[in-house]
Amino acid sequence: MNQYCFGIDIGGTAVKCGLFDVKGNLLDKWEIETRTENSGVHILPDIADEIQAKILEKRLNKEEIAGIGVGVPGPVNEEGIVLCAVNLHWGVTRLEDELKDLTGFPVKVGNDANLAALGELWKGGGTGYHNVVMVTLGTGVGGGIIINGRIVSGTNGAGGEIGHIRVADDIDGICNCGNKGCLEQVASATGIVKLANDLLKNTDKPSILRESEVSAKSVFDAVKAGDMLAIEVAEKFGRYLGSTLATIACVADPEIFVIGGGVSKAGTVLIDYIEKYYREYAFNSCRDSVFALAKLGNDAGVYGAAKLILL
Amino acid sequence: MNQYCFGIDIGGTAVKCGLFDVKGNLLDKWEIETRTENSGVHILPDIADEIQAKILEKRLNKEEIAGIGVGVPGPVNEEGIVLCAVNLHWGVTRLEDELKDLTGFPVKVGNDANLAALGELWKGGGTGYHNVVMVTLGTGVGGGIIINGRIVSGTNGAGGEIGHIRVADDIDGICNCGNKGCLEQVASATGIVKLANDLLKNTDKPSILRESEVSAKSVFDAVKAGDMLAIEVAEKFGRYLGSTLATIACVADPEIFVIGGGVSKAGTVLIDYIEKYYREYAFNSCRDSVFALAKLGNDAGVYGAAKLILL
Repeated sequence: MNQYCFGIDIGGTAVKCGLFDVKGNLLDKWEIETRTENSGVHILPDIADEIQAKILEKRLNKEEIAGIGVGVPGPVNEEGIVLCAVNLHWGVTRLEDELKDLTGFPVKVGNDANLAALGELWKGGGTGYHNVVMVTLGTGVGGGIIINGRIVSGTNGAGGEIGHIRVADDIDGICNCGNKGCLEQVASATGIVKLANDLLKNTDKPSILRESEVSAKSVFDAVKAGDMLAIEVAEKFGRYLGSTLATIACVADPEIFVIGGGVSKAGTVLIDYIEKYYREYAFNSCRDSVFALAKLGNDAGVYGAAKLILL
Repeated sequence: MNQYCFGIDIGGTAVKCGLFDVKGNLLDKWEIETRTENSGVHILPDIADEIQAKILEKRLNKEEIAGIGVGVPGPVNEEGIVLCAVNLHWGVTRLEDELKDLTGFPVKVGNDANLAALGELWKGGGTGYHNVVMVTLGTGVGGGIIINGRIVSGTNGAGGEIGHIRVADDIDGICNCGNKGCLEQVASATGIVKLANDLLKNTDKPSILRESEVSAKSVFDAVKAGDMLAIEVAEKFGRYLGSTLATIACVADPEIFVIGGGVSKAGTVLIDYIEKYYREYAFNSCRDSVFALAKLGNDAGVYGAAKLILL
């Protein structure tokens, strides 16, 4: 009995769905389109339909379903209320109640970056640890903090919003959040491209980066090829992110930092630059914290969502 | 039954002791000397003697004692092991086991700054909240973080060590921790004096601070009297601390920041300068966090230690 649960990760364009057994084996995964029209009213009914269909397809008994965990791209408070989700066109949403009414199953909801952290802790780069800070380096910089196996959601759903830590006063432009000098402006994929383009513009140094359009991937490929200008970009990135993680260690003091998101596909070279500056800036007793790459890729969110049901 | 508990706060020169009922009323408090000679071997037996004597004096039944909570000036890991306590001349100390063996009562131990936070949450400036960041501005800068009513001790006992967050690269001198540019170097009583003396040295501006020795108290007294140079010092202090608390909000997102320690005797004017810069730097959804002064003064530690037994 109670042998299965669903992990659902709602993104702006697709809803990722996973069927798990309670040991954390991903038995089936699939995606549906996220229909954001009409203030996103279709999203939860669509998910309910998918779950009912999967139960029929797999000939599961309803009694065997422990529940549905759901990740959303927006702040979720400690009472499980989604405060908003811009990309889904949602305002305040009582997702747990609504999806329970639609399906009859217990529902738990969390912020997607926090659930990615929980997923990595459970079955990915953080397995075996119970205090983890996960950093997701993608279009933006997301974060998720788990202390004693529990997500730090924060009073306003801003627990682990590390992309919006101010790291410098001299950064051009405004962050998506409206502030200036956020970590996200220098350590996201977009930020790395900006660091590189600024350097390309302001010097005449030769670089293979001058030969085609710059991306976070091309920067770290160039680093691996020994390109000095790309290495300078990686040093800047590493100093911003490593020193910020040292700051976070003085607050949450995790056992391990797990680095994920698209940028982390660069591999261990990325960790090298972050770790170098982390060790330089960290408070003595946190200096030996472990760094690891995320392992679950785009599935981290569905793993974490499922785990939410099994906590 | 189980109507009483002891809260003990071990400092470098004195051990503060409190007898509480389980509702949190402080029934009696007293101090004894901290005997640090011989690697501090007398400290725990002295405390055990005090507790036995108090039980006799008050004619308590041993069955009525729920336990003893103890705060120590050093890192404590999640298993309740004191990793070191320099001012007590202690290395790794299994305080819970040792004091239990000496007294026969259950014992719980925590870091003193964390317990001050717990005490303020329970009976002081943070009453009614369950997520709090406490900042203690004294000779150094201490911190304690409580999430969902539980202390964030951290993997290495460095949870809430906010005094060692790096806030600037251009600060002269080395912090006690060995790093450079720590918050403690600019926001402690000592740090405020240094900010003021630097400014007095580098300008000819008139100031009542030129008339006697500068202290954190004299700076904030001068601020209240409208002294422009002192106000400049307060602005610098406020920017350093307010922006750091904005960073902490992106990690732990507390409901309330409680400001305590000797410097906080300056009163609400202190909060004004911190809050001003906090609001400027904070991530949108955390901008409205509450600020309050600590209320328990030097008793915060014994309250928090007692609460540890009642969690």
